[in-house]
Amino acid sequence: MSFCIGVDLGGTFIKAGVVNDRGDIVDSLQIPTGVEANSSSVVMQNIKDSIKNLMEKNKDKKIKAIGVGVPGIADDKGNINIFSNIRVFENYPMAKELSQEFKLPVFVDNDANNAATGEFLFGAGKGMNNFFVITVGTGIGAGIFINGKIYHGKNGCAGEVGHMLIDLDGRPCGCGNYGCWEAFASASAIIKRAKSLVRKGVKTTLIKYYPDNINAKVIVEEAKAGDKISMEIFDEMCRYLGLGIANIVNILNPECCIIGGGVSGSKEFLLDKVKFYTSLYAIPYAYEVFTIKLAEMGNDAGILGSAALAFTNLRD
Amino acid sequence: MSFCIGVDLGGTFIKAGVVNDRGDIVDSLQIPTGVEANSSSVVMQNIKDSIKNLMEKNKDKKIKAIGVGVPGIADDKGNINIFSNIRVFENYPMAKELSQEFKLPVFVDNDANNAATGEFLFGAGKGMNNFFVITVGTGIGAGIFINGKIYHGKNGCAGEVGHMLIDLDGRPCGCGNYGCWEAFASASAIIKRAKSLVRKGVKTTLIKYYPDNINAKVIVEEAKAGDKISMEIFDEMCRYLGLGIANIVNILNPECCIIGGGVSGSKEFLLDKVKFYTSLYAIPYAYEVFTIKLAEMGNDAGILGSAALAFTNLRD
Repeated sequence: MSFCIGVDLGGTFIKAGVVNDRGDIVDSLQIPTGVEANSSSVVMQNIKDSIKNLMEKNKDKKIKAIGVGVPGIADDKGNINIFSNIRVFENYPMAKELSQEFKLPVFVDNDANNAATGEFLFGAGKGMNNFFVITVGTGIGAGIFINGKIYHGKNGCAGEVGHMLIDLDGRPCGCGNYGCWEAFASASAIIKRAKSLVRKGVKTTLIKYYPDNINAKVIVEEAKAGDKISMEIFDEMCRYLGLGIANIVNILNPECCIIGGGVSGSKEFLLDKVKFYTSLYAIPYAYEVFTIKLAEMGNDAGILGSAALAFTNLRD
Repeated sequence: MSFCIGVDLGGTFIKAGVVNDRGDIVDSLQIPTGVEANSSSVVMQNIKDSIKNLMEKNKDKKIKAIGVGVPGIADDKGNINIFSNIRVFENYPMAKELSQEFKLPVFVDNDANNAATGEFLFGAGKGMNNFFVITVGTGIGAGIFINGKIYHGKNGCAGEVGHMLIDLDGRPCGCGNYGCWEAFASASAIIKRAKSLVRKGVKTTLIKYYPDNINAKVIVEEAKAGDKISMEIFDEMCRYLGLGIANIVNILNPECCIIGGGVSGSKEFLLDKVKFYTSLYAIPYAYEVFTIKLAEMGNDAGILGSAALAFTNLRD
């Protein structure tokens, strides 16, 4: 059995794990990213410490490579650019530095791409060559598989689907535009929507959680429990999710969309609605061969996806 | 010098030509498609007659293959499905039938894909591997090049960008949905917009052409001549064109969009505006490496694209 280390660099935490070639995490840890120091060397040291720690605790296992997921863009040499959360990396040779430190092959890619690679190798994307994985959270990111490989585009930023405009001059988005998909269909979008309705005095059981404890999970729970407003909010999100998925279906005619991120925890409650709306908006011929699935990587998607990146690159 | 025949099957006319490997049309003809007979054998006979005619007139040239463009979907064996205009082909083995008739290799693909192949081989797409060509006319179709090849998707209908929803519940589209891109940014959309404004009594020089002679060309001409309403209509179309192009840029991070179809005749007048709006709506990192060009195939795009399909397949 062979092993790789997967590292998920997030804005708050670095999560890392030792993963075997069947996709089991045999050891893992989590440490703060340390963004407050505003220094690339501090973040890099924390990444190195987490890898070192795992390697020492797992000396008995042959680690073959390291995969890293970053909330930004990586070129095929593992040089990274990060624009959000951790603004300290600009054209930074992360793969090279880690490879020199640990004398192992190191592969780096965008975290949404790795989520897709994880599903491809270990999860809901097994055996498929043309599909995409959307991660629905604060925003909406995608990893797109074309002909059995992650599609990076011209300079590595393919899959920025969250900023697809679906309603010109519609809701404001953090990017400065109005009407981006993620301003309608992300977890953040429904939280904002819920808070706004509570503030307006609309009758809803969500008032129990207002303001700080309103999150996507409680909105789903209250919707299931029969709160009409929560249901409307959830349904609206599903409608917009379906719309955006249908747009990608019409453009790329893929075989599957895999939905990941926190909202995928709502399982069939989400899936059935999103399927319905996608079927309304996609062209019939493309929809006929298309399916929507839930991601299977769950909370460990970051570690598993990064390890999957390492495994798939070792194979090539 | 080698030659291929390119056939462009349209709803009204079949256009066919003998094309050399530099992209010159050395002979061509046009005959009615004959859709009114509502019979696949009548249309097939007309296609065969047009090819036969060209082959007889060009006996001195060695014709190596035949390429056909259809307003529908073709699989990689050249079986076609057409849903609009010519509804007589359902899973019809067009390539096989023509190949048996003429004892030559025959390749069939969607006309928007062929437009992209034409630009790739002979025009504005030379040397590029990741780009897309949009043809703006009655609707908006696209041919998408990924890693140097036309991307067909799961069952051959990738590139149906005209039905990307950009304004949920917006303007009605012929497909039955509301808010499709082509209901805002196609030639038909601006003609409809112009007629509606004239009917409302808005002061515009377009009244000279109302109702039957209002077309995209006169709207552009009147806009250039200083008619404010024509300018507003044209500008609105460019804004929506930019929006849809930006969406594809955000999803696919391509290097170029090539704009074809009648409206591309407006050249820089169109291009400058569309570039401006695309720059507003695309994410900066993807826009940095992206350009927009005008198609170079012009009125003969259909014949040249179909011939280009044949040439590129012979190469493979």
